[in-house]
Amino acid sequence: VPPDEIRAVLAALKEGRLSPQEAEALLLGAVPVAAGAINLDIVREGRTGTPEVVYGATKSAEQVVEALARLAASETAALATGLDDAKGTAVVRAMPAASWFPTAGVVVAKARPERRGGIAVVSAGTSDGRVASEAAVVAEALGNAVLRIDDVGVAGLHRLMARITEIRACRVVIVVAGMDGALPGVLGGLVAAPVVAVPTSVGYGTGLGGLAAMLTMLNACSPGVAVVNIDNGFGAAVHASLINRAGP
Amino acid sequence: VPPDEIRAVLAALKEGRLSPQEAEALLLGAVPVAAGAINLDIVREGRTGTPEVVYGATKSAEQVVEALARLAASETAALATGLDDAKGTAVVRAMPAASWFPTAGVVVAKARPERRGGIAVVSAGTSDGRVASEAAVVAEALGNAVLRIDDVGVAGLHRLMARITEIRACRVVIVVAGMDGALPGVLGGLVAAPVVAVPTSVGYGTGLGGLAAMLTMLNACSPGVAVVNIDNGFGAAVHASLINRAGP
Amino acid sequence: VPPDEIRAVLAALKEGRLSPQEAEALLLGAVPVAAGAINLDIVREGRTGTPEVVYGATKSAEQVVEALARLAASETAALATGLDDAKGTAVVRAMPAASWFPTAGVVVAKARPERRGGIAVVSAGTSDGRVASEAAVVAEALGNAVLRIDDVGVAGLHRLMARITEIRACRVVIVVAGMDGALPGVLGGLVAAPVVAVPTSVGYGTGLGGLAAMLTMLNACSPGVAVVNIDNGFGAAVHASLINRAGP
Amino acid sequence: VPPDEIRAVLAALKEGRLSPQEAEALLLGAVPVAAGAINLDIVREGRTGTPEVVYGATKSAEQVVEALARLAASETAALATGLDDAKGTAVVRAMPAASWFPTAGVVVAKARPERRGGIAVVSAGTSDGRVASEAAVVAEALGNAVLRIDDVGVAGLHRLMARITEIRACRVVIVVAGMDGALPGVLGGLVAAPVVAVPTSVGYGTGLGGLAAMLTMLNACSPGVAVVNIDNGFGAAVHASLINRAGP
Amino acid sequence: VPPDEIRAVLAALKEGRLSPQEAEALLLGAVPVAAGAINLDIVREGRTGTPEVVYGATKSAEQVVEALARLAASETAALATGLDDAKGTAVVRAMPAASWFPTAGVVVAKARPERRGGIAVVSAGTSDGRVASEAAVVAEALGNAVLRIDDVGVAGLHRLMARITEIRACRVVIVVAGMDGALPGVLGGLVAAPVVAVPTSVGYGTGLGGLAAMLTMLNACSPGVAVVNIDNGFGAAVHASLINRAGP
Amino acid sequence: VPPDEIRAVLAALKEGRLSPQEAEALLLGAVPVAAGAINLDIVREGRTGTPEVVYGATKSAEQVVEALARLAASETAALATGLDDAKGTAVVRAMPAASWFPTAGVVVAKARPERRGGIAVVSAGTSDGRVASEAAVVAEALGNAVLRIDDVGVAGLHRLMARITEIRACRVVIVVAGMDGALPGVLGGLVAAPVVAVPTSVGYGTGLGGLAAMLTMLNACSPGVAVVNIDNGFGAAVHASLINRAGP
Amino acid sequence: VPPDEIRAVLAALKEGRLSPQEAEALLLGAVPVAAGAINLDIVREGRTGTPEVVYGATKSAEQVVEALARLAASETAALATGLDDAKGTAVVRAMPAASWFPTAGVVVAKARPERRGGIAVVSAGTSDGRVASEAAVVAEALGNAVLRIDDVGVAGLHRLMARITEIRACRVVIVVAGMDGALPGVLGGLVAAPVVAVPTSVGYGTGLGGLAAMLTMLNACSPGVAVVNIDNGFGAAVHASLINRAGP
Amino acid sequence: VPPDEIRAVLAALKEGRLSPQEAEALLLGAVPVAAGAINLDIVREGRTGTPEVVYGATKSAEQVVEALARLAASETAALATGLDDAKGTAVVRAMPAASWFPTAGVVVAKARPERRGGIAVVSAGTSDGRVASEAAVVAEALGNAVLRIDDVGVAGLHRLMARITEIRACRVVIVVAGMDGALPGVLGGLVAAPVVAVPTSVGYGTGLGGLAAMLTMLNACSPGVAVVNIDNGFGAAVHASLINRAGP
Repeated sequence: VPPDEIRAVLAALKEGRLSPQEAEALLLGAVPVAAGAINLDIVREGRTGTPEVVYGATKSAEQVVEALARLAASETAALATGLDDAKGTAVVRAMPAASWFPTAGVVVAKARPERRGGIAVVSAGTSDGRVASEAAVVAEALGNAVLRIDDVGVAGLHRLMARITEIRACRVVIVVAGMDGALPGVLGGLVAAPVVAVPTSVGYGTGLGGLAAMLTMLNACSPGVAVVNIDNGFGAAVHASLINRAGP
Repeated sequence: VPPDEIRAVLAALKEGRLSPQEAEALLLGAVPVAAGAINLDIVREGRTGTPEVVYGATKSAEQVVEALARLAASETAALATGLDDAKGTAVVRAMPAASWFPTAGVVVAKARPERRGGIAVVSAGTSDGRVASEAAVVAEALGNAVLRIDDVGVAGLHRLMARITEIRACRVVIVVAGMDGALPGVLGGLVAAPVVAVPTSVGYGTGLGGLAAMLTMLNACSPGVAVVNIDNGFGAAVHASLINRAGP
Repeated sequence: VPPDEIRAVLAALKEGRLSPQEAEALLLGAVPVAAGAINLDIVREGRTGTPEVVYGATKSAEQVVEALARLAASETAALATGLDDAKGTAVVRAMPAASWFPTAGVVVAKARPERRGGIAVVSAGTSDGRVASEAAVVAEALGNAVLRIDDVGVAGLHRLMARITEIRACRVVIVVAGMDGALPGVLGGLVAAPVVAVPTSVGYGTGLGGLAAMLTMLNACSPGVAVVNIDNGFGAAVHASLINRAGP
Repeated sequence: VPPDEIRAVLAALKEGRLSPQEAEALLLGAVPVAAGAINLDIVREGRTGTPEVVYGATKSAEQVVEALARLAASETAALATGLDDAKGTAVVRAMPAASWFPTAGVVVAKARPERRGGIAVVSAGTSDGRVASEAAVVAEALGNAVLRIDDVGVAGLHRLMARITEIRACRVVIVVAGMDGALPGVLGGLVAAPVVAVPTSVGYGTGLGGLAAMLTMLNACSPGVAVVNIDNGFGAAVHASLINRAGP
Repeated sequence: VPPDEIRAVLAALKEGRLSPQEAEALLLGAVPVAAGAINLDIVREGRTGTPEVVYGATKSAEQVVEALARLAASETAALATGLDDAKGTAVVRAMPAASWFPTAGVVVAKARPERRGGIAVVSAGTSDGRVASEAAVVAEALGNAVLRIDDVGVAGLHRLMARITEIRACRVVIVVAGMDGALPGVLGGLVAAPVVAVPTSVGYGTGLGGLAAMLTMLNACSPGVAVVNIDNGFGAAVHASLINRAGP
Repeated sequence: VPPDEIRAVLAALKEGRLSPQEAEALLLGAVPVAAGAINLDIVREGRTGTPEVVYGATKSAEQVVEALARLAASETAALATGLDDAKGTAVVRAMPAASWFPTAGVVVAKARPERRGGIAVVSAGTSDGRVASEAAVVAEALGNAVLRIDDVGVAGLHRLMARITEIRACRVVIVVAGMDGALPGVLGGLVAAPVVAVPTSVGYGTGLGGLAAMLTMLNACSPGVAVVNIDNGFGAAVHASLINRAGP
Repeated sequence: VPPDEIRAVLAALKEGRLSPQEAEALLLGAVPVAAGAINLDIVREGRTGTPEVVYGATKSAEQVVEALARLAASETAALATGLDDAKGTAVVRAMPAASWFPTAGVVVAKARPERRGGIAVVSAGTSDGRVASEAAVVAEALGNAVLRIDDVGVAGLHRLMARITEIRACRVVIVVAGMDGALPGVLGGLVAAPVVAVPTSVGYGTGLGGLAAMLTMLNACSPGVAVVNIDNGFGAAVHASLINRAGP
Repeated sequence: VPPDEIRAVLAALKEGRLSPQEAEALLLGAVPVAAGAINLDIVREGRTGTPEVVYGATKSAEQVVEALARLAASETAALATGLDDAKGTAVVRAMPAASWFPTAGVVVAKARPERRGGIAVVSAGTSDGRVASEAAVVAEALGNAVLRIDDVGVAGLHRLMARITEIRACRVVIVVAGMDGALPGVLGGLVAAPVVAVPTSVGYGTGLGGLAAMLTMLNACSPGVAVVNIDNGFGAAVHASLINRAGP
């Protein structure tokens, strides 16, 4: 609860426009939680610019449906990630208006209208597809135009160069890569937009489940690159969306 | 060399306005390098939005001065990082118009005029000062307004809450923290701007030279957080500057 | 065998109240073990304040029942952890007076009466539920009043602040968290009770199976935090119980 | 700011006993910080039971003296850790009433009176001395009676058994060990008090700067053991002090 | 696009033999990719000396067949690796002229004729068989004579010495070993050919999935040893083939 | 081939008792291997004191039977380790004179007669049983008297002390422990025999699959402790057997 | 205190030959320690077969001299390891009868007479000299005949084969190696004596301060190899000495 | 000693052209070593194609001079690596005909004449200079033509493309890179020669002393890349020289 909000609440209380009980609730920002219910943070969008997104991997389809319904009632977007085929189809059966993106493992129950600017989602290999899809679907649901480019890894640079003008037209670039994770650093030297790098767990042996790619990205020679957790297409989409939608 | 540039060069060649030799040089983008000289990338700003920045830790004061002079001639900003006291004072002795920031280890020979928006640079403890200073000085030299807030770690949350309204007014937030690295995740849950997290090597034992803080940040529960290398205040400033200056 | 016990035995021997054979057995503290039997440490409670607890994951349901029966005969509490559904229900079928807590994977065959003070068991996310349940059930069986609070991770601090007064009323606080593991350090800065932190293996990628959360906790800026092994709700409960029941 | 405090402030405001400005300051818990000053958390003791302790390794002797003076004015104890000989003697020269413990690297400017109960500080080898001394001196300054026992590592168990009755009489046991870190687990099987284990960086090769000892302690077969960071005698003392002083 | 190619294109453009559109396509080196198709690098052989090889583990049998057909049309060899029994037999059912090597997990649809020189593929134990087979089959398909020697680990040196003259007659030596990975270093001290070492994931415990063997090889006392990723028989074959086929 | 053997061969050759072909075969020590056969080192016992032991985990039951038969023909013992129930029972069905030890996963087709001295195999917990059984069965098959003591971990030292006199009577002590791995160091301080420590993968979380126990053992304060690979009961038995059978 | 000793003490007590106080002291095995003195374990040789050895790296020359004198009075050998030149020469100046081995960093104040059998100390490179010297000097002081062979690494196997007959004549083989650590595994396949492997911190990069060599040794294909800590020549000597001196 | 050599020796012995003593010496390949002398492998070139190279870091200038003189007498090249300025100048003062390369830390006492083909040594940044110099100087001394290209890292690809035709003309490419280590993989996709990658320890934080660069290289998407130890320019030169000089 920041100072100016506190000031406003205190003034209203002093002037009798609020009871002490109402003032306290506002100051705490607390939302009563029914016993046994999921503790959804349904005021997150106002606070952080992004609504809570349901992480479906550890929830039942019923819990996902309930959570999406509650979020759709109060926020500008409602979506769930980390769903397998069984859960995804069960959710859209219960919510016919929702969309199910099986490649991404994402259900979108309510999407923001597209606004402006644009996010490129670029991936190095076909095996990085699920993570790139998650990033792209989440970014679109959060109201961003998305340019999707796949399979342009550094072993054949001409494939990347053939698309570079399109990428340069975007305001943010999400780059998804496993194995050596070299693509974000190369792209960071070719574009003037901030690069958000997503290492994937694609690879074997010394790939160490994505750690090798992550280290490459953190040590990229190009200084505009920032990194999110391994396979975290969702987190990259949120960071990129905040960038794309910021400013006048 | 992107397609539209190629197209322009080819048209000029066809019309006889360029010789094949001139066209080839343009298409390669190559800049002749004198033997023994540092291979400065003086066309980087046009390509990536940020000029090459001189990394002074592995160069002599003379090399730093020469590189700054060359960059200042062609780019909108010229600065050097990673300088100790001896090098920093030697550089400004040779370049009286330059500014030396000893806490940050940075010399700024040419700065962009401040433009708009704003970057918050928030640090958890006094020991994180050098990294936070590097981020702040570089961000300012690249033309951004900077809000600097120090010593607001999570062990005393009221210190952070007392400044939260100021932080919320910025367009990007750089958060610098060592030890447990918990501050970026907490801030990510309180602001609607993208958060750029910088782990520092402050700590001991299981801090593992900053790896513990870095892992905390990559696993932050708040999804808007992206991470740069340990102690890399410079990289965070570049990523944040690209965000702050993007858009219409 | 500590000096004062040795002294008592020696005095009894000298006075003829014990034979040399009886004295030797007492001095060794050895309990004869039948061939093939589990080597239960049924004198552990007297020595360490906590009875041996049966670790069921590597034992059959029959072995668990037998061990619980032997412990119930000589100690103030008898419980088994690490049970899956099949084993848990099999055990309570054989011991109708025992209680089966499926969320925690724990059977309680004999519980101490509740005594005084109190232990808070606080968790960051719903996925941390099993570990938090194990801690809570074990703590209750060992005679402690338990306050259970879930889903109050640092990405939405207001959820934690809404419960902070209740937590402050407890004598010890167990904090269970995966992913970034930031909650114990934040709570350690808000309460005057010792904090026992339990990292969980919840997370992915750089979560490293709980190591990231564990490192965060060991490097917590708040100095009152101590840490147990990943997913070790049981160990946290024992440490907290010894704290809660100590003193006059 | 917990609910009941908010309620009290709001009631006072409503009844006119507080101005909105006063109420806001109380709700924020903020303490104004002069520009350039260290951001001391001088209300930490009220909140967490332990005053802020000055970490001297990254401060000048003058900063340590100033911080100690400010803490001594408002808290029940004022001490600084992590001091080398030069800083320690400089501090006590400026504060003649303070005590300097060179083996521990600690200055105590103000100590709590000893209260009750007791903390054992047990170390495995002579090389663990500095860490054990830090734990003992801090614990005493925080008002606890301390029993100090050194050089009783598991390679010669009789040395430990000769002191076990004394250790058993304490309410908490801090165990300090490097190399194999086996002592806390062995002691955890012999005493009924909670054990706080401190791994030290003593050792070489696969000791990995204390990581081997830390892993041993986290995997101790005795369930009452909790662990703090490598060489963190200070943190162990705070955790133990909160345990020892808790309860009626 | 290297300078001499650029020069030729520019000359043709200037002389009117190419339109600007044709020149641009050649300069970009871009090959149009149909929507949804795999982005095969079918000009890789001309650029790197080795055609793209299909990595079958993440593709369906149908995709493998399609990719092999496209590669066979334009390159001197077409093969797929990482196939299990089901995929391998499905592929050769669809391409009767192809060969299926189940031990290696490789299908060869088109092989280069054998040229000259020779590659030894030496393995330490029977468990290293799949990786050694992959190396041998790929090397043969790429036009190299292969000498295959198995089960000559360093625990029984006489087995290796009995074959050393044959190995010495080869131009490159691929050495495949798991567990301690000592064989490449020993062989490196016995032959005058470059040694390419392949660590395998064979082993347990501190073998760390092949990392122990890999570290041994990178630290080999014999200086002629270079290393590829764990289990990467394919990569070793490509490196060795480039060596064997180089030169006049 | 050591010098004295070379000398003998050369003398025989010079005197015409051997043909050059026979001499060469002897000097190489090579044993012809039929194509496709396992490359068994059937002269290993003469060279190293221990026959080759069949590692059954990566072989079929038929291969195990064939290898055991060949070893039994030329060496003093023939055994196979790493067998699951299906393979073990299949092997003894084909070799009725062999013995199958299901707890150890070992088949003994031919055992040396027991000789003298003795090896203690001591384990910390019941979960360490399979590794301890492997060590005990292999040691007995290699002709050593074995004393087996289980479940005497350091959390209840009296269980170990009750058996210490028996252990002290052995010439070598194998100690098997997972989790904290503290038992070998404690035993090393209580006995005058060399201690061979075997870490097991028993544990979870920071146990890191046995690495924590292994590090504890390598850093043991007791200097007589040497360590083998995780879960390597077989290797410990071979090392201990060489010790026990050495000397006059 | 083992059962038979307890029995003897109890019998003496019952018959009045000991007072309860004397019996208690014997049962505890405690040796009174003067305040401030080093807690020397001067009864270690009787218990473990090896006297306590002074680790000089963390002690002053005076402390080393005092400890050696006390050990020499009660044990069959008295030596100190880990000494630099200054301490070593200071110690022998104070104890003229002692011997100083600068290459090994060891002072021998009292040595056992040589007994029988023999220990080979074999090293891979000249850089491993200090560790090999420590092993050799300690082994000799403990009464073993030592054969020292240096610089016979696996990159030139003929150097090792030229000495193999001498090595085979020893009862134990200590093998010291850094970098790839391959020598112990190769030797383990050539000799019938137990091999004690000592990894050294010699190397760079992926040598990881000796961890690479250690992992190689723990994964050695030859089963008779056991391993001690990095650079721990002393520990290898103790293990080998216990082996060499065991038996009839 | 390979079979055909054994055959020749045996034939000569049988025909009386060699005495048994001479035959034995030849078969063992042993070279007598004077007591105290460095055990130089002066027959290495015949066996492995590369002479032993003196590693100067752990030797005195006198030892380096002596070793170089002995090598120069029997091999085609004699050089020493790992020298600092003091040693390097001392060596060339004693051997005026030798050349000292201070940037590389190498002295060349005897070089092979240049033969044919060529090795490119390409580095990513100026900080990689010492390692690249070591590779280049050693390769030249071993008789190879060397093309040296520096400072062409992937953050500015046009710098690399400007030189690609020169690199393509070489028979082997050594690529030296620190930080993200991305250059070898990018080059591997652009040339048809085998690529030998050398990670350097240049970088900080998550660079982990070169491990991040090494992992990138081992996971390179381009299959023709093989890797040597961190900072091991020497090893890369030997591997590349064996490649360049192989074949007809």
